[in-house]
Amino acid sequence: MHVAVVGLGLIGGSLLRALAAQGHQVLGYDADPATRALARTAAARARAGARWQVTSAVADAAKGADLVVLAVPLPAVGTVLDELAGLAYTGLVTDVTSVKAAVRDLVAGRLATPHGQLAGFVGGHPMAGRETSGFASGDPELFAGATWALCLEPDTSLRDWLELAALWTSIGARVVPATADEHDRAVAAVSHVPHLVAAALAASVAGDPLALTLGAGSFRDGTRVAAQSPALVAAMCGGNSTAVDAALAQAQAALDGARAALAAADPIAALRPWLATGHEVRTGWPPEAASTIALPARADTLLRLGGVGGWLTAVAPDRATVTAVRPG
Amino acid sequence: MHVAVVGLGLIGGSLLRALAAQGHQVLGYDADPATRALARTAAARARAGARWQVTSAVADAAKGADLVVLAVPLPAVGTVLDELAGLAYTGLVTDVTSVKAAVRDLVAGRLATPHGQLAGFVGGHPMAGRETSGFASGDPELFAGATWALCLEPDTSLRDWLELAALWTSIGARVVPATADEHDRAVAAVSHVPHLVAAALAASVAGDPLALTLGAGSFRDGTRVAAQSPALVAAMCGGNSTAVDAALAQAQAALDGARAALAAADPIAALRPWLATGHEVRTGWPPEAASTIALPARADTLLRLGGVGGWLTAVAPDRATVTAVRPG
Repeated sequence: MHVAVVGLGLIGGSLLRALAAQGHQVLGYDADPATRALARTAAARARAGARWQVTSAVADAAKGADLVVLAVPLPAVGTVLDELAGLAYTGLVTDVTSVKAAVRDLVAGRLATPHGQLAGFVGGHPMAGRETSGFASGDPELFAGATWALCLEPDTSLRDWLELAALWTSIGARVVPATADEHDRAVAAVSHVPHLVAAALAASVAGDPLALTLGAGSFRDGTRVAAQSPALVAAMCGGNSTAVDAALAQAQAALDGARAALAAADPIAALRPWLATGHEVRTGWPPEAASTIALPARADTLLRLGGVGGWLTAVAPDRATVTAVRPG
Repeated sequence: MHVAVVGLGLIGGSLLRALAAQGHQVLGYDADPATRALARTAAARARAGARWQVTSAVADAAKGADLVVLAVPLPAVGTVLDELAGLAYTGLVTDVTSVKAAVRDLVAGRLATPHGQLAGFVGGHPMAGRETSGFASGDPELFAGATWALCLEPDTSLRDWLELAALWTSIGARVVPATADEHDRAVAAVSHVPHLVAAALAASVAGDPLALTLGAGSFRDGTRVAAQSPALVAAMCGGNSTAVDAALAQAQAALDGARAALAAADPIAALRPWLATGHEVRTGWPPEAASTIALPARADTLLRLGGVGGWLTAVAPDRATVTAVRPG
């Protein structure tokens, strides 16, 4: 497959390496000349047979590509979509940003214009963030065992969707079918709100040297993602603001419950049942594979699988069935 | 030194091993017969010269001890204090629970009674929790590099305090001087609230299989301590309810700020400055040693050191000076 990767940060840079290692022809592009230089040097050093190339323009990367992967932050997605439309690129396009309804709407807006030449678009989101970023942090194994949400909307071409599911499972990802709205609601609770909470916890001890010195494991882990770039975190949380606000309101309500327990006559006794639900959820996480079955590659079947927390580990070569895992 | 360790969970069990490895004579006791049996088996297997013994009663452990370490959960501290008073034990006592004002008040109440025989008490708190608990999880290296808050109140014997500071620095801990109130306020923000927040984040995705499957690094770390025993977490948060409530109110106010940013016309732009403080705090954490100096072993000097986030790494044999580290 000829794949163009636009944006060579942690995800794009890892994807470049992972796809090249699978024998695909991969062309990368980044708007930053320094990143392009870094990627070219790395390509020159890569082992034979697992090389990629770096172009100096989106047009050069997209020319002849079967697939363009938009691995740029959300605020840059519209610009690259416009550029692809301007090039009359008619192949498949996907993205890797952490908000899916906003990207779906950007694409829909462009398809409705006279210049809307984007033939196939499938939104995606690999759950493979790290606290480090940039091309140098890239790792061809980043996606091995990672979940990769892949959006299946009523108007998504199932053929395009399966093509991408086959590609991402081939580099080790667990592909999770979901609509953009389902994805955004789930990820608000499980990723975006944790980022905001980490920032609030870290900010609460600003200028408190005793607290900073006494900080140990619970502070280290509870605030880890506050070290991520504020610009990236703002883009993902702000780009999913409605769902994040709802999930944050729910977390605040839960914390109100903790404050009520703290104000009880016996706070220790009152906190115990309050803590029980979170304890049960966390000790049962991550979900483990309970059964592996072949399922027909139908949109409704796939979305049902995603809804029960299942994922795909392979797509049959004839695209008629998928290998599906259901959690226990 | 003859040391009795009452309570052989993660902290007590690790302390038993760490002190024995330093050549101290250590007697352990646990209220649970199964834990005692486990500790006896481990003692029999320990290498020569680093052995401890396990007694079947607090009285047997405390008899002849220079120091009794209360390594029991907060709800059991009062009972053991009563038992020690009943034995007319007059040596030094310390504890390792995560709330210090409540323990200080328990001790003060007992000293005021006719049976109040506790001669010396110094409250302590090693910041060395893990998500595992119990004797089997014990590790003699648990305290190496860990901070250990040691309470220095107006009525604390400086001699007793320095004796304990010398002991805990000898097993690798960074001893942080603080009053019980300073400790409780700091730890509420840096440890207790992170535990409550982790439970709230985990509980928010109960019964949401898609979210549980999409959970990745930020969920894993942001909820890690929700896996700890609810009874232990309830004891530490509920035992420090006033300070925890204040710190939780502050965290909630910060999160209200995030909700205001999410409701702004441009949520991405509004979130960026909101995220900046937490980012700055977390990327500058943990505090690093900037200078190491000898300080006179005076209460006011020690408390000032703790207040600027400093710690002790050693106490001079004559107890006149301490080796102090100030963070950068």
